[in-house]
Amino acid sequence: MVYRIGIIGFGKIAQDQHLPAIRSNPNFELTAVASQRGLTPDEARHTFTDYRTMLREVPELDAVAICTPPQVRHVIARDALEAGKHVLLEKPPAATLSELEDLRRISGEMRKVAFTTWHAQYNRGVDVARDTLAGRRVSRLLVTWKEDVRHWHPGQQWIWQAGGFGVFDPGINALSIVTKIMPVPVFIRKADLLFPANRDAPIAADITFSTGAENADLRGVFDWRQTGPQTWDIEIDCEGGPRLKLSHGGSRLEIDGSLVVEEAPEEYPGIYRRFETLLDERRPEIDDAPLRLVADAFTIGRRVPVEPFEDEPGKAS
Amino acid sequence: MVYRIGIIGFGKIAQDQHLPAIRSNPNFELTAVASQRGLTPDEARHTFTDYRTMLREVPELDAVAICTPPQVRHVIARDALEAGKHVLLEKPPAATLSELEDLRRISGEMRKVAFTTWHAQYNRGVDVARDTLAGRRVSRLLVTWKEDVRHWHPGQQWIWQAGGFGVFDPGINALSIVTKIMPVPVFIRKADLLFPANRDAPIAADITFSTGAENADLRGVFDWRQTGPQTWDIEIDCEGGPRLKLSHGGSRLEIDGSLVVEEAPEEYPGIYRRFETLLDERRPEIDDAPLRLVADAFTIGRRVPVEPFEDEPGKAS
Repeated sequence: MVYRIGIIGFGKIAQDQHLPAIRSNPNFELTAVASQRGLTPDEARHTFTDYRTMLREVPELDAVAICTPPQVRHVIARDALEAGKHVLLEKPPAATLSELEDLRRISGEMRKVAFTTWHAQYNRGVDVARDTLAGRRVSRLLVTWKEDVRHWHPGQQWIWQAGGFGVFDPGINALSIVTKIMPVPVFIRKADLLFPANRDAPIAADITFSTGAENADLRGVFDWRQTGPQTWDIEIDCEGGPRLKLSHGGSRLEIDGSLVVEEAPEEYPGIYRRFETLLDERRPEIDDAPLRLVADAFTIGRRVPVEPFEDEPGKAS
Repeated sequence: MVYRIGIIGFGKIAQDQHLPAIRSNPNFELTAVASQRGLTPDEARHTFTDYRTMLREVPELDAVAICTPPQVRHVIARDALEAGKHVLLEKPPAATLSELEDLRRISGEMRKVAFTTWHAQYNRGVDVARDTLAGRRVSRLLVTWKEDVRHWHPGQQWIWQAGGFGVFDPGINALSIVTKIMPVPVFIRKADLLFPANRDAPIAADITFSTGAENADLRGVFDWRQTGPQTWDIEIDCEGGPRLKLSHGGSRLEIDGSLVVEEAPEEYPGIYRRFETLLDERRPEIDDAPLRLVADAFTIGRRVPVEPFEDEPGKAS
């Protein structure tokens, strides 16, 4: 079956990832685009600056992919579900857990698919890691997620505002891998959140996890101040072995030092294949676990003030 | 049916509230108490300093009430459910939402009742408010929850630690009323969290709520610095009326200026009557909505530093 899909929010992630993934999947047809700035690709037959007009004027739409900033996703997704459309949500799926819970409720009431996507989960290394860890006891977990915010978010202010998540904007990708591969649930036991004196979101975080089991050493180090090589690694030791190392955001996996998976990331095509399956089966997939861990870290985390952050080093803003 | 119940954690809330409520309910029999400090009432036939010994050595126990500080509730509740006991959880039911979600899972797997109690919900004014608001549109909500932390928590340090919730320790009572009475889901749109310079938890919070509807004025003011009269009020205006005012924590209700309910709070007897029903029906009741709103406030809230807080005014600690 071919699903007619609309994109809401046509910024960088929609252009770079969603558009090519939809183009390469014969089961989706890009029918409409809603973009406040009026951006649109050639093939969209209908374009709108207001998504509500799109929902009203393109009745043949089956589904929408919501690629706006997270603050407005809840209201848009609610309107789309209530207009009878299936929805695919970029990560994070909402600004708060209560908003996401509301989408779960509406998806059920409207019998429409809501799909929370966590793109980092769509790497083959992640699947192999999960299968390898199934049934084992983890004695050590080290998440190292360090990148240069100036490179990845040049001049962006929303990431530093309250609710912008700060270093958890990339860090939630790591957490979405952790919640997928760990054989038992993971909790936040302790968190230090480093807030620049002039910002309302953390630039770094040190997290101690827990699984309820004793004697396990489970940690996460998130840092947005990393210049030079960037690090997106997850190391896991099991009791009695093996030792796993997922790197490059999940696209590379070593087990006991041997390279097992190394593939160019193909995350978004995987996301749309999954969406296709969920639509065929009319089955929602609402995974709140990564967002819940972030909320837990903010809830029990200790705020540690650190030096002000300026977009250009050495220059006060 | 008479349920044999054990109390785990025999501090102030257990002695002042749970013990009399159990004593006054003929369907519960207090069989055992586990208290690290070895405290116990006369009638408990079995007393322990380690709850794990109690779970092992009193096989006839049907249920436990967990009245410890929240940081350890998850592990205790998990152990109790896995030992085949039903569990009643004091508020807040866990330190984090992921812990509570884990208890939901285990409760389902073990087919044992887990019951999250929110004591402020057990006032008749709250029930009448909910019934009055059903189906109406709320145009204005004002939560005013102001009390004197020095009076209610003299010298307690855990409330000021990260994860101790600060002013949301009482504030979650207000939120548990709001989530029960509001006719539609409520979200946190904006939050200012006031942190004393020397503490890791907020002493006050200003919250803007949202229901997704436009033109509604929905606010919460939480403050732990209130000397003199203490205020636990919730005011709600509906479009076209009526106007409700819940005060004294939910035990007093005025509608359009007329006193409709005024009763001495009987919260814990109501909690145990509810537990009895859930046990008879073997039905878990896990309400995470109040804790979710607190987590949402911490997640998107802006931290505002305020002057240091000392347990004795004018005296640095």
